[in-house]
Amino acid sequence: MAATRAGTAPVVALHFGDGVLHAIDQTELPWRERQLELRTAAEVADAIKRLAIRGAPLIGVAAAYGVALELARDPAPTSLSRAAETLRTARPTAVNLSAAVDRVERAVQAVGESDAGDAALTEARAIEAEEQAASAAIATHGAELLAGARRILTHCNTGALAAPGRGTALAVIAELAARGSLDAAIATESRPLLQGARLTVYELSRLGIPHELVVDSAAPGLIAAGAVDAVIVGCDRVAANGDVANKVGTYGLALAARAAAIPFVVAGPTSTIDLATPTGAEITIEERDPDEVRLIAGRSLTLPGTPTRNPAFDVTPAELVSALVTEDGVLRPPLASGR
Amino acid sequence: MAATRAGTAPVVALHFGDGVLHAIDQTELPWRERQLELRTAAEVADAIKRLAIRGAPLIGVAAAYGVALELARDPAPTSLSRAAETLRTARPTAVNLSAAVDRVERAVQAVGESDAGDAALTEARAIEAEEQAASAAIATHGAELLAGARRILTHCNTGALAAPGRGTALAVIAELAARGSLDAAIATESRPLLQGARLTVYELSRLGIPHELVVDSAAPGLIAAGAVDAVIVGCDRVAANGDVANKVGTYGLALAARAAAIPFVVAGPTSTIDLATPTGAEITIEERDPDEVRLIAGRSLTLPGTPTRNPAFDVTPAELVSALVTEDGVLRPPLASGR
Repeated sequence: MAATRAGTAPVVALHFGDGVLHAIDQTELPWRERQLELRTAAEVADAIKRLAIRGAPLIGVAAAYGVALELARDPAPTSLSRAAETLRTARPTAVNLSAAVDRVERAVQAVGESDAGDAALTEARAIEAEEQAASAAIATHGAELLAGARRILTHCNTGALAAPGRGTALAVIAELAARGSLDAAIATESRPLLQGARLTVYELSRLGIPHELVVDSAAPGLIAAGAVDAVIVGCDRVAANGDVANKVGTYGLALAARAAAIPFVVAGPTSTIDLATPTGAEITIEERDPDEVRLIAGRSLTLPGTPTRNPAFDVTPAELVSALVTEDGVLRPPLASGR
Repeated sequence: MAATRAGTAPVVALHFGDGVLHAIDQTELPWRERQLELRTAAEVADAIKRLAIRGAPLIGVAAAYGVALELARDPAPTSLSRAAETLRTARPTAVNLSAAVDRVERAVQAVGESDAGDAALTEARAIEAEEQAASAAIATHGAELLAGARRILTHCNTGALAAPGRGTALAVIAELAARGSLDAAIATESRPLLQGARLTVYELSRLGIPHELVVDSAAPGLIAAGAVDAVIVGCDRVAANGDVANKVGTYGLALAARAAAIPFVVAGPTSTIDLATPTGAEITIEERDPDEVRLIAGRSLTLPGTPTRNPAFDVTPAELVSALVTEDGVLRPPLASGR
């Protein structure tokens, strides 16, 4: 049922052409499909900061293009270092962001100033192509791992809006739907910014994949009640010991999956694995604006000025992760020695 | 710090006077303090259904007054049975509701038709007074149990807006604040209807108790990170084996508390314990309107018509509950033999 309609209208989140980085403004989805036209590193960094471009693999690619955009305007070494700094600090948690900027910086430093713009653009295109290939491989490996799961719960958004190609965890779900073995995807809304309700539902709807939306806190009870066969999520950063930093709420889903003895699978390109970070305890967790908690779409949900805690991520210990699906296949922690 | 300002302006959710049940319309808090004037059983049932009056103990008291209101208009036995039926079926999960209606019905059946109205009102007042006394005793027992906890996380709303007197779990927090031993209450927003963001924050603010608001899915990560000393929640129904049905999301908090080895305490009057229900598996979980998930304050959060699952409650197994604080003291499961 799902298979007949799946794959009809994939989303393209980023597209570089004519010296401009075109990006869907994800803050306006699903209501408006507005295209941003980004021409400078500062504009790309701003789009990343305000989550118009988001998803660990996607922000890495966007940042790489951001360096290229800047060097096309001014190929001087000071321009390179300024652009790299602006983009690297746009968000703190994902390792893809700084890794992609580092790669472009190295590629540029290996050539003369007159070739800087071309070298940066070539490297950005290479990073994007690698991530697209990684997405396709993740979809295949993940679908093989979860071949028996008919009702799969996912968190946040990990589709084409989060990573080049079809995405990561959502690519696995899309692949299972295409193979005809999926009954339903269950999407958590993913407060505070509702990436599940806004973006995952939008992608699932475009792909024709049957789905249900739940509030975040309903997921553990549904898992306990036997309504879910497996949980699959993406990752913003994976430490060397296999601890996973991902969208706030991931840890609670992992606890519920463990209690119900169903697989809890993390999907992501190897670019999200940071062997320089020994464990989850060393991962910087971004604390975001209190108004993300206090408001929805500009409307107040509570008393004005209410104090909040608003961590964007949490850390799931490696022992709760059944498997890490990457483009290289299925890994199991610890990763430092296992790769 | 908290103690000096605590207890300044308690909320009164329900007040019966001049033949009218006055109730704050909780759907409009914290923005508007509108008083409803309810004069019939149908009006009370409607207020309960649309959550203008909510909280297991409070809806029991409201329903008792609802029967009294109807018998004051028409004391005939058919009037009694019609009112009882209307109120009993307003919501399915809380046992207080049907228990309170049963009590008033029995009191009325014990007297002649001419005394029916008075008998119903006397019984409703007795139920309210018992719940107020229960709230005070729960606050004391709970504060003794959690004397060492300085940062306490709570879910949904369990204060004066949920139960006569100061409430249940929130009464314990208020008592700890009054004793000067609380640093902060951490309130979950409690999607879909935001009873935490709207009602608990409102009550904590009026009581002058320091507090922080978090999205539901942030709680497990904060608990794991050591930011919380104890979790205390209310209960909608407790089965004989100690399984607890409570606001959706409670189970996930219990898993996180267990993983972090901090107390997970349930507070509620013995009227929420249903010895006729052997385990949580037999508790009917109310599935509510999909638009609660799709919308907030009338604004769409997702694509129109998105399918949802919207359970109002989940079941926390007894083995995850550290203690059940009632007016009779601290109970530990199983309850059938333990009381």
